Amino acid sequence: MSRLATLFRRSLAKYDRVGIYARSFRKTCPRRLFSHHSGTAAAVFEKCSTEDLSTKIGGENAGLLAAEGVDLSYPAYTIWGSNTGVGKTLLSAGLVGSILSSSEERSRDVLYLKPVQTGFPKDSDSRFVFREVSRMLRNIPNGPPNNVFISKHTLKASPAVHQAVRFKDEVGMEDLGTYEELILEGSRRPNFFINSDEKLTASSRERNHASSASQLMCRTLLAWFDPVSPHYAAQLEGTVVEDSNLIHSILSSLKTCTGNNLRHGSSLEKSGSNKWLIIETAGGVASPGPSGTLQCDLYRPLRLPSILMGDGRLGGISSTISAYETLHLRGYDVEAVVLLDSGLANEIFLTKYLQGRVPVFALPPVPEDINESLSNWFLQSQDCFARVRCVLEKAHMRRLQRLHEMPSKAEKILWWPFTQHTMVPTGDVTVIDSKCADNFSVFKDTAGGKLEQQFDGCASWWTQGPDSRLQPELAKAAGYAGGRYGHVMFPENVHEPALRCAELLLQHMGKGWGRRVYFSDNGSTAIEIALKMAFRKFVTDHKTVLDTVTSSKHIETQRSLKVLALSGSYHGDTLGAMEAQAPTPYTGFLQQPWYSGRGLFLDSPKVFLRNRRWQLHCPDSVLGDSVTEANNADILFESRNDVFSIVRDETSWADIYRAYIRQQLHFHETSNDDVIAALIIEPVIHGAGGMDMVDPLFQRILVSECRLRNIPVIFDEIFAGCWRFGVKSNTELLNCFPDIACYAKLLTGGTVPLAATIASEDVFDAFKGQSKLDALLHGHSYTAHAMGCATAVVALQHFSDPSKNSNLTTDGRLQELWNPELVSAISSHPSVRRVISIGTVFACELEDKNSGYASTSTKGLIQRLRADGIYTRPLGNVVYLMCGPLTSAASCTSLLQVLLRNLG
Amino acid sequence: MSRLATLFRRSLAKYDRVGIYARSFRKTCPRRLFSHHSGTAAAVFEKCSTEDLSTKIGGENAGLLAAEGVDLSYPAYTIWGSNTGVGKTLLSAGLVGSILSSSEERSRDVLYLKPVQTGFPKDSDSRFVFREVSRMLRNIPNGPPNNVFISKHTLKASPAVHQAVRFKDEVGMEDLGTYEELILEGSRRPNFFINSDEKLTASSRERNHASSASQLMCRTLLAWFDPVSPHYAAQLEGTVVEDSNLIHSILSSLKTCTGNNLRHGSSLEKSGSNKWLIIETAGGVASPGPSGTLQCDLYRPLRLPSILMGDGRLGGISSTISAYETLHLRGYDVEAVVLLDSGLANEIFLTKYLQGRVPVFALPPVPEDINESLSNWFLQSQDCFARVRCVLEKAHMRRLQRLHEMPSKAEKILWWPFTQHTMVPTGDVTVIDSKCADNFSVFKDTAGGKLEQQFDGCASWWTQGPDSRLQPELAKAAGYAGGRYGHVMFPENVHEPALRCAELLLQHMGKGWGRRVYFSDNGSTAIEIALKMAFRKFVTDHKTVLDTVTSSKHIETQRSLKVLALSGSYHGDTLGAMEAQAPTPYTGFLQQPWYSGRGLFLDSPKVFLRNRRWQLHCPDSVLGDSVTEANNADILFESRNDVFSIVRDETSWADIYRAYIRQQLHFHETSNDDVIAALIIEPVIHGAGGMDMVDPLFQRILVSECRLRNIPVIFDEIFAGCWRFGVKSNTELLNCFPDIACYAKLLTGGTVPLAATIASEDVFDAFKGQSKLDALLHGHSYTAHAMGCATAVVALQHFSDPSKNSNLTTDGRLQELWNPELVSAISSHPSVRRVISIGTVFACELEDKNSGYASTSTKGLIQRLRADGIYTRPLGNVVYLMCGPLTSAASCTSLLQVLLRNLG
Repeated sequence: MSRLATLFRRSLAKYDRVGIYARSFRKTCPRRLFSHHSGTAAAVFEKCSTEDLSTKIGGENAGLLAAEGVDLSYPAYTIWGSNTGVGKTLLSAGLVGSILSSSEERSRDVLYLKPVQTGFPKDSDSRFVFREVSRMLRNIPNGPPNNVFISKHTLKASPAVHQAVRFKDEVGMEDLGTYEELILEGSRRPNFFINSDEKLTASSRERNHASSASQLMCRTLLAWFDPVSPHYAAQLEGTVVEDSNLIHSILSSLKTCTGNNLRHGSSLEKSGSNKWLIIETAGGVASPGPSGTLQCDLYRPLRLPSILMGDGRLGGISSTISAYETLHLRGYDVEAVVLLDSGLANEIFLTKYLQGRVPVFALPPVPEDINESLSNWFLQSQDCFARVRCVLEKAHMRRLQRLHEMPSKAEKILWWPFTQHTMVPTGDVTVIDSKCADNFSVFKDTAGGKLEQQFDGCASWWTQGPDSRLQPELAKAAGYAGGRYGHVMFPENVHEPALRCAELLLQHMGKGWGRRVYFSDNGSTAIEIALKMAFRKFVTDHKTVLDTVTSSKHIETQRSLKVLALSGSYHGDTLGAMEAQAPTPYTGFLQQPWYSGRGLFLDSPKVFLRNRRWQLHCPDSVLGDSVTEANNADILFESRNDVFSIVRDETSWADIYRAYIRQQLHFHETSNDDVIAALIIEPVIHGAGGMDMVDPLFQRILVSECRLRNIPVIFDEIFAGCWRFGVKSNTELLNCFPDIACYAKLLTGGTVPLAATIASEDVFDAFKGQSKLDALLHGHSYTAHAMGCATAVVALQHFSDPSKNSNLTTDGRLQELWNPELVSAISSHPSVRRVISIGTVFACELEDKNSGYASTSTKGLIQRLRADGIYTRPLGNVVYLMCGPLTSAASCTSLLQVLLRNLG
Repeated sequence: MSRLATLFRRSLAKYDRVGIYARSFRKTCPRRLFSHHSGTAAAVFEKCSTEDLSTKIGGENAGLLAAEGVDLSYPAYTIWGSNTGVGKTLLSAGLVGSILSSSEERSRDVLYLKPVQTGFPKDSDSRFVFREVSRMLRNIPNGPPNNVFISKHTLKASPAVHQAVRFKDEVGMEDLGTYEELILEGSRRPNFFINSDEKLTASSRERNHASSASQLMCRTLLAWFDPVSPHYAAQLEGTVVEDSNLIHSILSSLKTCTGNNLRHGSSLEKSGSNKWLIIETAGGVASPGPSGTLQCDLYRPLRLPSILMGDGRLGGISSTISAYETLHLRGYDVEAVVLLDSGLANEIFLTKYLQGRVPVFALPPVPEDINESLSNWFLQSQDCFARVRCVLEKAHMRRLQRLHEMPSKAEKILWWPFTQHTMVPTGDVTVIDSKCADNFSVFKDTAGGKLEQQFDGCASWWTQGPDSRLQPELAKAAGYAGGRYGHVMFPENVHEPALRCAELLLQHMGKGWGRRVYFSDNGSTAIEIALKMAFRKFVTDHKTVLDTVTSSKHIETQRSLKVLALSGSYHGDTLGAMEAQAPTPYTGFLQQPWYSGRGLFLDSPKVFLRNRRWQLHCPDSVLGDSVTEANNADILFESRNDVFSIVRDETSWADIYRAYIRQQLHFHETSNDDVIAALIIEPVIHGAGGMDMVDPLFQRILVSECRLRNIPVIFDEIFAGCWRFGVKSNTELLNCFPDIACYAKLLTGGTVPLAATIASEDVFDAFKGQSKLDALLHGHSYTAHAMGCATAVVALQHFSDPSKNSNLTTDGRLQELWNPELVSAISSHPSVRRVISIGTVFACELEDKNSGYASTSTKGLIQRLRADGIYTRPLGNVVYLMCGPLTSAASCTSLLQVLLRNLG
């Protein structure tokens, strides 16, 4: 702390030497915006009517509420530095000057934005751009083609800045609102006047504008006094700003500066691409922002195309490439690399190295005495800036063109799964430009193009889990595994990611029973492997019964092996997995002519929330003779916890279930030559079958009945596992263990396909023998691939680490994410038949006469939700919302609110 | 060029001012090593007997010949810089000093290696370490614990260095061999003498050593005069050095300096971990080495654990993190980040950011006048250096311990596919520490531990394709896709990697026929999807025939759909894919009780090389009545090209094949209620079935017969496609098109699972309808996942780009990779039954009475090949070698030579 204090004093001392800057600044609207902040927690955010920071938002649901999106109708670029002091601001000024002095007839509107400035007021990149661009334009023979209105505006500043500039005490980030403006007259000697005493009002703006005028607005959003990294300045000066606030400040600035308000009513639609936005970051690509989040992560939700200011000095090749890779790893598109020539020919090497990816430009060396000769330097550089501008314009057009053509190209050459192509109009194809944490960035072909945020409410087919911190970690883990291994052969081999992943799977998911991990690629293959395991185990355990089966081919056909499963369960789309499910629309002759349904499929009792109460629905088939004694409509629970309570094992329901299961097994045994050789269940919820919650008591009794008969038990946890229902494994919810369990989907945190089939040692032993032919002969090329295992390791560790997953409670489960009051309210909505919510899953079935897979009753609701920023897909007449294990309860609340509103 | 010249003159001018250094240097052994070099091509490499650069190697087979491996019995670290001038050499000196002054009783041997030095002789990091470490040790009260023998040696230098130092003209990288040495006496005031006039000979070394002495050797391997980036210095001074030469120089240095030669016969085995190796790189992590390859890529085959010298200055957080990510992306393990404190508390931020990954250390600020007070600085820093050393020692021990325990842990918790676990002794588990291009780095538990290179001769189950340039590109593509998308939902959506990948697949693989791309996860799923497509197409086309089938369930069972396939073909391990293959050991009741074999499986004629001639073997069943007219043994071809020639369509063989196929189909139709609804073949080669090359004429006629009957045709190109047989798609070799084709394995270049089923528009149209239930209802969670598609895009582009794939010929095929003379020689070896070679595949079947899947006859050969640096797995009695589309013909030649030698 004493070092910080020293530094602060040092900074103040420096300020004394630059006091001159303070006098040119004026206060405008000192409304309180960011509160004082002493630690690293989030800033308290108060209502504020300032033009540029007008929306009240919480950090959590930034995605949802940022649905206003990013305007694509004009080029918008972020300028990044490969280090500090490499000349980002020179590039900004040169580029802005080049845009404004372009000989094209149309006027230009340029917004130069410096979201974060430290060392203020001594250092102000906005001021530099303001000053140098006006000089540049004046140096053009005959002046710029159009009149140019140039303004400079600083919004919020830290208390230390206020103290230094205005000698006034403040406690948080307060409006500084310093403002300057000038006009350069076009195509003749510029007439140059400053209105620095006037407020930035609509009237002054209008007076200064001619209808053909160009405009440059230079804005600093947040300024700190200390000339250090923003996170450090924010700490030193006690004013931390949350990432989401900063992002929204930027979006607001774009809206007000480039939208209708900008110039005399010229609308965005009309003006097309004669607008430009240049955002200049602070320091290097990975320099921390005010909150401590790296800037490359902080600005990621916008994913603006980028320009990287490289380094022309000794060592500059390395820092340029590293900075490029840091941006690349976060999914940024770098459209140009620019550097200041230092005589080391760095640009020659970089051009070759980056060939085919990004063009490299070298600006002339900067004169040693910058202030003297910068005008000349800009003059020398103008060709280069023009070429950069041209490249950026083309990249922007190329991007827009591609985004526009993607839907029709997709319709022409892609073949989507589970999609009737004739029912997808071109306008309905969703172009996903990127994803950040839970949010898609979706292209909208309106008003010249726009990127909107949509919450990924179907968790991309139930795979997704990362938040904005985990996503880059997963990307890095994948990159590391690719760099270290690519993919390497697995049988009889071992590599660190596979071994570590297996260790974690046994520690978390296999706890108490699992001993072996068999890797494959996806849920379907994990199930086929599980079935092969279970059958072999059964055959080994029941040798005497089956001797007739294996002895001759004839008998084999007579006594074939079957699974015991529940109607409505689903285990995958490959034939073997399909055979383990009861007939559905998926399994018809037209879909899979080879399907026969090799199972005994039982009915099952369901639980759900309706009219604010958890209740049980038990089909008559299960009730059997007990129909009269148990009145279905009366079975209510106090809470969801009561549903899962093992106290129920002692109730008459346990007897009813047991009787039904025994009777079914007995009937099958006596009327069939088939042998039941495995039980396979989806614990707790039938997912693809329609989000039906099966009574956990029923599943527990089913497992115990199979144990009695030595029938191997498979838990299909592909959807259910890895915290999807709030627990690592649903052995915790069902209170019993399987012999085999399958994991996929969330296993890699939502990155690449990987599946694991966990088995007990007994199951493994059934494959031991003296011949290779006794081994389990099933494998896929990418078995235990390094990228999958490495991302799974990061995901499993991240999800189970309380310091990273704030949803974790002390018992290692997720806290309740879905607001119980809202869930109850939805369950009593007249158009809702039933609701379930557990862990990361919320689902509601709509009242619909034509329920089932082909139902289209949810279509309108789905469209309204998408328009409201929630991307979801229905399962027949069931609408569900799914978040990740890291999503905040606040976000879930927002989702439910939007859903409730749209139910009407 | 004039700029280069200027710079060169400038450098010379600088040299004049530092001429003093020249005088202390002496010539030793001026044998010519690296030739003069004016461009960027590889240096000509001449035989040389110098101690440290003694092996004549070609760049191509560096992997194979580097089988000597990396010794793990002592800590070896590479020091990287986050930029130039961040204090790498200070860290080196401090660390070396800390090691040598450690109070532990045992003597220490430290090799400090500077592989590449520019700005020499003015700058010499070896000299700095030599000088500062001796000063440091002298400053220790009572001296170092042991006597310390310190030497400094510079090996090769550029002509400019020779000119400057020795005023002598040279043309290539020649021996400079300057040498100095001194001894510090331990535990008393050091007795300090320099033997700079003596040669480094065994006798002088021995004389100077006491048996308990520690030793420090400071070595510069290659020195250039210009103080610029090594690639630029090498260009300026006309002496480029190939990467493989540099790597081998390092390995040789390690061997001679730390092996038996080092000190009076103390062997490596005995000395344990009292040795250390510190390698200091030049500039930043991504600064180019002498050949222009980035150093982070250049040193990657060694993958030594790393220390990153971070940057404590303003902007240093960013450059440190970026440099860390650059190393991470290439699979390096960074064990410590060290930086010089500049009062900005960068270490506080970095410690937090890198928490749980790597510890961060801050050294005190360096005094402004370095020469004056460096001794004091080292004294102040010694605690920090000791902590760094301690962390590095622990990391080394942890790494070794993990490598040692991995085999037994793997045996305990992993379940390998296709592996009889009882037949894998612990010693036989291969620990793969990493992979670089075609080479595994494999841990050997001998002599304290070692990493050996093995050529991945089975291409990791036929998936692999990257060379050392493509591998980091694939890693970056995966990282980018992870950062930009993670994974996003596919149906009705489109994202750039999926669309681009589909475009490339149609352009390359679907050329001439394919219109739609259906993504899935692996070969098996691609096949199941293909079958569903084909069946629906057939049902649509044959409505009248099948009306009885679809109308009632009863009839459906009677007329089920079957495939037409070839015995010996293989299509995957899921049930649906297995059903399309003839019975094999994989399909027995114990393996898959649900298998029934739903196909008409035809025999097929095979072609192969035997006794130096390509010949045809046609089974009697195919010959039928033609047995007498066609004598099998006589069917010889002039060349492999003749086998594929379409001229053969006009021969009597075409008639024989046609007759057989027609007769089989007719027999099936008349004797069966089943309907043949699809043809599925592996074009050209039956892979898993034993590397059998099917007569392409037979497959072509089979396709045309199915066309006549309107039976959809599936090409299973999962193994065959993507240049595996030298062509993008085997439509080129078979000269006919399918309706559906499947791709996987090489599709992503060998990184993550991804599969694509390409279909014609007619096939797609068969799924159009008014209901979602008509659509193809098959999908997997990670359908078209971004990382898979993005890596596939990079791989497909790389493989098909002649500027990146030097194996490409003008017709877009790969050149012949397997030396025809060697292939012929192997085909006439007495223990070889037959040989095939095409594209990236070479296979030979050994003479063996017990051929087939369970054969163990190849065991000895496989073990000998592994000992000789080739990792391969047999297919029964077939041994195969598989490279990537980028592997050089020279490497393939080496592989064949090793194989031929081991055949005995």
